This record gives sequence, C-alpha cells and structure tokens, in this order.
Amino acid sequence: MRVLICDLSQQDGNEVEVCGWVHKIRKLGAIIFLVLRDRSGIVQVVYRNKQISLHLESVVSIKGIVKKNQKALGGYEIEETHTFVFSLAQADLPFLPEKDINTYNLESILDHRLLSLRNIKIRGIFELEATILSAFSTFLRNHKFTEIKTSKIIGRGTEGGTELFEIDYFGKPLYLTQSPQFYKQAMVASGLERVYECAPVYRAEKHETRRHLSEYVSLDMEMAFIKDEHELMDLQHELLEYVFQEIKQQHDSVLKMWNVLLPSAKQWASVPRLTYAEAKELLRQILGKTVFDIQPDGERALCDWAAQKYDIEAVFIYAFPRKKRPFYTYFEETLTRSFDLLFRGQEISTGGQRIHERDRLEESIVYFHLDPASLKDYLSIFSAGCPPHGGFAIGLERFAQQILHLENVKEAAAFPRDRKRISP
Amino acid sequence: MRVLICDLSQQDGNEVEVCGWVHKIRKLGAIIFLVLRDRSGIVQVVYRNKQISLHLESVVSIKGIVKKNQKALGGYEIEETHTFVFSLAQADLPFLPEKDINTYNLESILDHRLLSLRNIKIRGIFELEATILSAFSTFLRNHKFTEIKTSKIIGRGTEGGTELFEIDYFGKPLYLTQSPQFYKQAMVASGLERVYECAPVYRAEKHETRRHLSEYVSLDMEMAFIKDEHELMDLQHELLEYVFQEIKQQHDSVLKMWNVLLPSAKQWASVPRLTYAEAKELLRQILGKTVFDIQPDGERALCDWAAQKYDIEAVFIYAFPRKKRPFYTYFEETLTRSFDLLFRGQEISTGGQRIHERDRLEESIVYFHLDPASLKDYLSIFSAGCPPHGGFAIGLERFAQQILHLENVKEAAAFPRDRKRISP
Repeated sequence: MRVLICDLSQQDGNEVEVCGWVHKIRKLGAIIFLVLRDRSGIVQVVYRNKQISLHLESVVSIKGIVKKNQKALGGYEIEETHTFVFSLAQADLPFLPEKDINTYNLESILDHRLLSLRNIKIRGIFELEATILSAFSTFLRNHKFTEIKTSKIIGRGTEGGTELFEIDYFGKPLYLTQSPQFYKQAMVASGLERVYECAPVYRAEKHETRRHLSEYVSLDMEMAFIKDEHELMDLQHELLEYVFQEIKQQHDSVLKMWNVLLPSAKQWASVPRLTYAEAKELLRQILGKTVFDIQPDGERALCDWAAQKYDIEAVFIYAFPRKKRPFYTYFEETLTRSFDLLFRGQEISTGGQRIHERDRLEESIVYFHLDPASLKDYLSIFSAGCPPHGGFAIGLERFAQQILHLENVKEAAAFPRDRKRISP
Repeated sequence: MRVLICDLSQQDGNEVEVCGWVHKIRKLGAIIFLVLRDRSGIVQVVYRNKQISLHLESVVSIKGIVKKNQKALGGYEIEETHTFVFSLAQADLPFLPEKDINTYNLESILDHRLLSLRNIKIRGIFELEATILSAFSTFLRNHKFTEIKTSKIIGRGTEGGTELFEIDYFGKPLYLTQSPQFYKQAMVASGLERVYECAPVYRAEKHETRRHLSEYVSLDMEMAFIKDEHELMDLQHELLEYVFQEIKQQHDSVLKMWNVLLPSAKQWASVPRLTYAEAKELLRQILGKTVFDIQPDGERALCDWAAQKYDIEAVFIYAFPRKKRPFYTYFEETLTRSFDLLFRGQEISTGGQRIHERDRLEESIVYFHLDPASLKDYLSIFSAGCPPHGGFAIGLERFAQQILHLENVKEAAAFPRDRKRISP
C-alpha cells in the first residue's frame, strides 16, 4: 500500500512504500542519497552499500523504513530496503525538471513542455489554475448558477471580426468560437437565468504579445434580471475575493515559490471604480499627454495609481463609449453599461449589461454597420421574450499570469498555441 | 427586491415582486389568470378588472400580494398590483414552450432550439447535466484529482483515424481533438498523477445514429500508480454512485417529469463484470447465433440479462482483445486491461490501463502498423519516466440520454452538431 510523501510523518519507524520520480541522486562514499518526488512532496531515500543504476526522472516504487532526521527535507528520510523500477528514463534528458527554471528561457521551457511541466514551480501554475476553476464554479453554483456546455463550432460569429479559425465541417466552412456570448445569452433567455461555462475560445491573432494566446480558457458567466453593470462588478468583486481566499488556503507553497502575495481582504475591498472618461483624464495627468484610448501603458499606470491611492493594484473601468464595445452592449446615448477589470497592470476581465430589447438591438446593428441577416439566429432570442441581463468573462491564463507575475501568458497554458507553436 | 417563485410560501400576505416569463394566459370574465415562470417554478397571477396585452413568453416584472390558495399551483397565488414589461414576445411563436413536448418531433425541437430549451421538461435535461458535471468534479477533487485544461487543436492524433475535422491554422492543416488522451497522459506523467478534464471533443462521423454527435462533452480522468483496470472500474463504480445520489437529491422533479428512476444504492452495488469472451458466449446463448463483436443489439441484451439476474441494467465488460482497442492500451499476450461500461442498453464509458513502458509501446506501434514518426511527441512521454496509469472517459450527453431514456442523444446537447445541423 503506497504512502504519499506528505503523510510520512505519521509513519515514523514503519516500513512503507513510496512511489514517484527520481528527483536527485548524490553519492557519498558507500551511501547513495536519492531524492524522490511525488505529487505531494519530496523525500530523501538512503541506500547503504548498494548499487543503483537509475537516471533522473525514472519512476520507481521504494520500500523502506521511515526515520526522523532533523537535517533531512521535511524532517524524515527513508532507509531503503527494496526498489522496483516502473519506468527507466533516458540518461541525458534535454531539460532537467529539478533545475532552477531561471536557467531556461521561455522557448526552451515550451519546447520541452512535457519535461518542464515536471518542475515543481511550473507544476504549481496548473495546480493554482485548477483552484481558480473550482473556486469560480463553486462560488457561482452557490449563487444558483447552472453550468452549461455550448458548441465551439459556429457560423460567422456574433463578434464579427476576421480573427476566426476556419474549420472544414463536412465540406462547409465553419469557425471556432471566439466567445460563448451568443450561447450564454440564449441559455439565460431559456429560463436558466444564471449560467456559467469554462471552456476554450479561439482568436486567430497574427501578432505576438506577452498577453495573447490563440486558444485560451474563458471563464464566462451571464445572469438575468440585473439593474446595471454595477451589479455585475459587485458580483465579480465578491467572486474574486473568494478565489483569492481559496488560493491562499490551498496554495500557500505555490505563492511562496513564485514569491508573490495576493491582495488581503481589506486591500481588495477598496478596488476603485472609474468611468472611462475619468480614467482617460487621470492618464492625461499621469502620463502628461492626451490619451485616446487605454493602452497597455495606461493599464499599468492606472493600476500603479490605484496601488498608491487605495493600496490595491486593481481598477474597474466602466461607462465605455459605444464605439469601444461590441454591438450587443447596452447603451444609453453615447455610453455603454460595460466594464473592464484591470489587475496588476493588465485587463483580466471584461463584461457588461447586454441589450435585451429587440428594437434597441436593431438600432445598434445599424449603428455598427452589421448585416442583420448574419445575426438571424441571435436576433430570434430577442423576439421571444428576453430578460435584462449581463455577464462577464475572465481569461484563465491571463488571470494566473497576473497572480503569479508571469512575464508571458504562454507560461500559464499547459500546451499553448500561437502562430508558430502547435505542439506538443 | 425580486422574490423567486419557490420562496413565495414565506411571503404570505406580503406585497412582493416576481420576475419571469409569461407561461400561460387565461381569461374568465373580468379576471385574467396569468401563469408566470421563473427558474425556480411557476405561479398564478390574478388580474382583476384590468386589461393586459401580453403575448406568451414575454418577460415581465409583476408586483402583487401573495395569497394562500389551496387550488392554485404550489398553494399560493399573487393578486397583481403592478406589471412592468421588460420584453414583449412576438405574437405567434413557432414553438410554444408550455406545450407538451410530445406534440413536437425531434427535428422541430432542434430547429426551434432557442424556444424548446424553455420547455421545463427539456430545461431539466440541462439542469441534470450541470449536476453530472459538478458531481464528477467534486468526487474527483475529493479524491485529490487536479482539473486540467488542454489544447483542442492538434496535429494528426494519437487515435489516428480519418474522422477528424481539419482547421486552417494560420495556413497549416491542424485538427480538432477526438480525445484529450495524449494530454491527460502527459499531465499524469508531469507529476500531477491524478487529473480530469470536462471538455468538448470532435468526431467527423458521417453516419447518423441515435447515439452519435459530431461534438460532445467528454468527462475524462486519468490516474497514476494503478495496478490494473479493476482499480479503475472500482473508482468509476463509486463515482457513478455519487453522481446518482446527487441527481436524486437535486433533481427529483426532473426525474419525475421524465418518469424515470435511478438505480438504488443496493441495485448499483451489484453491477456485474464480464470478460469480453464471457460476454460473447452469453450473447451466443441469448441471441442464438455466433457473435463476432458486441454490437448495439448485444449491448441491449447484456443489460437485459444483468437486469434479470442482478436487478441492475448495467455491466462492465473487460479483457477486450488487442485488436478491439487503441494501440496505447496495456496488453498481456492477446488481451488488454481495458473495459467498457454498458448502462441501460448502451455503452456510456470506456477506459483502461495504458502502456507506460516505452519498449512495449513500440511493439504495439508495430503491431498496429502505425508510424512512429507521427507519434514522436507522444513517445517522448515514455522516454522520460512514466508511472503505470490508466483512466476512463464518460460521454456527458450519452450518459444523460441513458439516465432520462432519451430516444436520441441530440436531445441531450443544448446546441447539437451533426452532419447537417450547424445552427443555432
């Protein structure tokens, strides 16, 4: 019966079986010290007067006696009695998971993805993302949201745009979805009222930046019977507080490895909200130049401003002008009921109230010079009775990037896709 | 402040606001009875000496006094004081959500999907699927599994096969994944050891059957350090017991609407396990003919046999011959450590131990006449130390189909995709 390394302290003096990966090997005269790694931790195994021929990363089962040793990692080590090799690794791996990842550059980390994922610090990114996913779902389920699964194969999308990947669908050209926008609105109008989906979305963006992926996981929610976008910001604020709390509870060691802190509840409580116009005026003052749009340098400056003034590196921007938002965004005169959340210098979420009145939507379609025929299915939602509603989406990888201060969002995708990278 | 219909019993005598869809309207002299539907239930609203011009499915907010009425649905009704119309539905909808769905055929239900989803019985399918998703995740998280999100865009897949949808990926031909098999094995070998993913997969199947979709949600899991396939069947058995329990607790009304029962804990405990050879011999006796493979009629017959003998319409079939399973399936001589679960006459899950030894895998690649060069990335997992492991996948829609006795699996997809159906 296998024992996890994290549970060895309960086995002092017993003979146990541990299973895992050979993390390190060191010889000292007739003694070999082998560090074994499993999903729960690492432990030193001592071989006395024995020869072993194991390469790093081989997978083994080791039986031995658990002994207290103050000097050993975790306070315990194992005196080996029997070793069984499940799988022998090749001798000279091109990437060594036990090494400090700072010795590798991003391209090397991603080229050797199957090995770099074994690095404990890198693995921590994905453990943290799993907790973001589960906290997002749990919070929304507790607020009576229903999880939905919608098609990722669509005709020319609600968002329009040229950044679509084309699929040969039994000889017909279809596209990979850029967002579940149409479907989450349809499911709200279906009577579920509150829905969420955590699923891949696609952007055929040609440019390379540190914040873009061709395929990413979108954490989407949408809810009926809202008054305005502030209700959505309130809920998102509460949701992210819950996510932070879960990460702190479950991934203290990951945060320590990456040397990052999360906002305290008190800091998070003071996230300011600026209108788009206020944000631009503030940027004019800070950057000393006229600002036509909030660009990456502006996002950075606004978060720095919030950090100084409110002790929190985050800002909600709302009341964007119509031209800056998609056609389905609820508007009053020239402004929309929409918002972005900037966190640590970068937008991590976008949301807003949507138009639920068919005539207002038709006006918007004209305003944006869109073709109503291509939006026939979408429009039919609003002919059949649709509640006022809205929602938001959070990019999973970009959120993890900002939490862990990762230089490039690709580090936060297990198997990132960009213009050039298509494997593994 | 809006009150949900399910909470009206706590509001007897109070003036409340309810919001929802106009489900039915009936006039009786100077009185109008309007049945309002929200996500939590339906309630009768009484209009006295008032005119209202609302079509069915319009979305409204209604203020009124809650009154006990034994004869009303749910024991309470509302005496209207004020009505606000959020969204007026068109007069003659092509599909009426309040009607018995047996009055519509499948094509009509799917053609009018945005309306048919509003039918309470149909909506129940998707509420139930949300609970399958959350129970699957919760059970596995409780067993220390980590949720993963992997790429759906791949080169020619591990499964091979011609049933792939091609994507134009920046001018290169790539494909939509048929399963996360490669990635879940990679993530197990990365040291996470236990992983799961709930995500879409794609099969470009040309034939139309009641059990196939071109896009479906695969509930996938994979775990390290297993002994054999029986450990996986044990875990799946326990997992599904948990799923059934959650459905019973949360969706009693859905089960009643569809007039179905779930297996009791006692019935479920007795799911038999047959080897493939035993199952074929049994079918020979039952069907009175030589059986070369377990076809749909065989799956039906085996479940009927189990129902008679063990009072449960389910069977695990294991020890499939090599030729019947993918190349990566762990084998001993001519048999594999793999299994299927049949439930109510249809396969709903397939799984097994995978090969973790590189030399055995290379032997298998030769046996199946596959090209090792096309499997380079996959093979590299096994050069770097890989634990013994295995897993299974459950098709979400097909599982819901079998639970609710749906004639066609497309009924269990919110927005199904097949050869012809590409919208909504």
